[in-house]
Amino acid sequence: MKPNFSLRLRIFNLNCWGIPYLSKHRGDRMKRLGDLLNMESFDLALLEEVWSEQDFQRLRQKLLPAYPAAHYFRSGVIGSGLCVFSKHPIQEFTQHVYTLNGYPYMIHHGDWFCGKAVGLLVLHLSGLVLNAYVTHLHAEYNRQKDVYLTHRVAQAWELAQFIHHTSKKADVVLLCGDLNLHPKDLGCRLLKEWTGLHDAYHETRDFKGSEEGCTMVPENCYVSQRELEPFPFGIRIDYVLYKAVSGFYISCKTLRTTTGHDPHSGTPLSDHEALMATLCVRHSPPQHTPDPTQGPAERSRLISVLKEAWTELDLGVAQARWWATFAGYVIGLGLLLLALLCALAAGGGVREVAILLWTPSVGVLLGAGAVYLFHMQEAKGLSRARAELQHVLGRAREAQDLGLESQPALLLGQQEGDGDEEQ
Amino acid sequence: MKPNFSLRLRIFNLNCWGIPYLSKHRGDRMKRLGDLLNMESFDLALLEEVWSEQDFQRLRQKLLPAYPAAHYFRSGVIGSGLCVFSKHPIQEFTQHVYTLNGYPYMIHHGDWFCGKAVGLLVLHLSGLVLNAYVTHLHAEYNRQKDVYLTHRVAQAWELAQFIHHTSKKADVVLLCGDLNLHPKDLGCRLLKEWTGLHDAYHETRDFKGSEEGCTMVPENCYVSQRELEPFPFGIRIDYVLYKAVSGFYISCKTLRTTTGHDPHSGTPLSDHEALMATLCVRHSPPQHTPDPTQGPAERSRLISVLKEAWTELDLGVAQARWWATFAGYVIGLGLLLLALLCALAAGGGVREVAILLWTPSVGVLLGAGAVYLFHMQEAKGLSRARAELQHVLGRAREAQDLGLESQPALLLGQQEGDGDEEQ
Repeated sequence: MKPNFSLRLRIFNLNCWGIPYLSKHRGDRMKRLGDLLNMESFDLALLEEVWSEQDFQRLRQKLLPAYPAAHYFRSGVIGSGLCVFSKHPIQEFTQHVYTLNGYPYMIHHGDWFCGKAVGLLVLHLSGLVLNAYVTHLHAEYNRQKDVYLTHRVAQAWELAQFIHHTSKKADVVLLCGDLNLHPKDLGCRLLKEWTGLHDAYHETRDFKGSEEGCTMVPENCYVSQRELEPFPFGIRIDYVLYKAVSGFYISCKTLRTTTGHDPHSGTPLSDHEALMATLCVRHSPPQHTPDPTQGPAERSRLISVLKEAWTELDLGVAQARWWATFAGYVIGLGLLLLALLCALAAGGGVREVAILLWTPSVGVLLGAGAVYLFHMQEAKGLSRARAELQHVLGRAREAQDLGLESQPALLLGQQEGDGDEEQ
Repeated sequence: MKPNFSLRLRIFNLNCWGIPYLSKHRGDRMKRLGDLLNMESFDLALLEEVWSEQDFQRLRQKLLPAYPAAHYFRSGVIGSGLCVFSKHPIQEFTQHVYTLNGYPYMIHHGDWFCGKAVGLLVLHLSGLVLNAYVTHLHAEYNRQKDVYLTHRVAQAWELAQFIHHTSKKADVVLLCGDLNLHPKDLGCRLLKEWTGLHDAYHETRDFKGSEEGCTMVPENCYVSQRELEPFPFGIRIDYVLYKAVSGFYISCKTLRTTTGHDPHSGTPLSDHEALMATLCVRHSPPQHTPDPTQGPAERSRLISVLKEAWTELDLGVAQARWWATFAGYVIGLGLLLLALLCALAAGGGVREVAILLWTPSVGVLLGAGAVYLFHMQEAKGLSRARAELQHVLGRAREAQDLGLESQPALLLGQQEGDGDEEQ
């Protein structure tokens, strides 16, 4: 690679709102999305909420000349909704399905059935290794009383860990997607602090688009105005995040968003706004390589957000265990009731009533059993994230105590025990 | 690191058979395992089937002076059963839970509830980065009619992919565990060919232990003699696998197994045999670094095993879809029956019969719904593995066609399209 190496990357991201039978004007919007992608010829288009694989296949056919490589990430019952179209060959791909993703009995929310995941693509561009991630975290249905907050924090942690462990040899890391997190939300800060990813909206000097970079705006006719009421400009929950490692420098030259309506036909492409970023990768002296764990200020921020996330996960573990215990009691009572009904049925007298009550009792028992199993699994999943987080927190604290501010590799290389990660 | 750098690693692996209430002499065996680990002072002890976290905590207390670092990998309803004890500090840890792991309605087998996983530990030893993996794949209950074969192949592929994507910056990769795969089984070959891991049993010149390195032997009093009938010496399903990358060379100096009984008290530590390996890591010139994708013979073997695995997964996808379709028909018929029962109940006549049949019909409907959802998820999971595998197969074939035998980085670095991975 030449010392004056420079690479320009044009990235597109959109949550497509492609729910069969439910999303308005889906076919037309998908068609216009294909036209836009063909016209603009991005290096990489990362899409979320393409729930129908037929929609993906149609797009694929349409985009084949301009984007010869494509992949749909399958998971869950419905599919992850994630897919990618690339101008460049995809060297490798894999995915990680989040351990926790809502509750199966919240059928009307449906997230559990989707198998929300993070997809990874490895691309080799002019000798540079690019790890591109695309993801979609659990939706937020009620910001005031968010029952999925813990799951989203656990997902943000799993996402950060997946990126951390799979991108160690990458030169450039790119993450696009619908995080369902506002910029200052715990999950978003946790993700950024632990991975060292930078937010294109904050980094670019050339931004054009919706007010404050919002990706769900009241101007969009598909957006529920009631839900956006507390946010006059809208909310920013879709992101282009990036970082460069190992002697490269990356910057965001331009960032554009759509603004709630399509300039040609008037109706927008989705209920979310599209993000279009132009990134520039150059060689840089090693000291210019950003390192999230370098300075004391960064470390202090990391420790603070890790503590906050630990507390949230700890609360989640306690709540999951409470539900499992409650279900356990219901199972116990259900068994007692069944025994009683058997005795009554055998003894005569109220035999008909006993027989009629038998089936609902078995139903309650099976239901409670399922709830017990689910929340036991939830508790294990949250405990796992909490243990990983606590380990990182312990190491960050030791690094802070040692005050070795000039050793960037400290956090990833120091030799200390991890005797307290199981607390 | 000095050019004459040399590192000796003593590794212990055991499937502990630690099922609360079911496994015989569990407490006593765990106690003796702790004594052995304390006496021998290994660098790393990797354990499977420690199903009770209390057992882990007791071992942890006992082993704390000799193994200051430890971790239990939590997952599923019960837990993954995986844990590690390390003489050296653990830098980082994470885990990956397998997407497919048996069927929830096979309650008597129980694997689905365990959340089988692979755990990863990153250790820094004298400047060398060691990625140690511990895993336990789905059990094989009937070798002649193995209904879990496809799931185990998918798990082997996910394991190989997890290692492949998380070990890119590691100097040494170590995988220990109970793979529930014989050495020539498809999953085992797939894992070895795609990761380039070497089998300690085949590599060492100094082996002492059970005949043919078997890890379940008829001499072991806890082993079902009936199940081992077709295998006079026993079976080898537990492994120590390793490889060195980036200019290091690793060899297995000695490999020992227990032989079905404990020399002191007479009863064995588990129904599996323990593996004790002494590995030696040295610097080596780059050309001595093993690369699984280097030669045409290796590539040909890889292509062959990828094809075989693709066929197996393809069969699995078809079968999962068949079950989902079947469950779909049952749902349809159940709905029809319910409508009929409603009409009969409203019309009088056989009202009592109709009301009595109502509850079992709802039960069948819910059951069929659950089966439908499960097999849809299974089909997605298998399709995902098949797509990843097909992509690798396509690249391996192109590498073979090009015949660029002298370029070791070819398979990981060539620039070709992946237009056919969605077939």
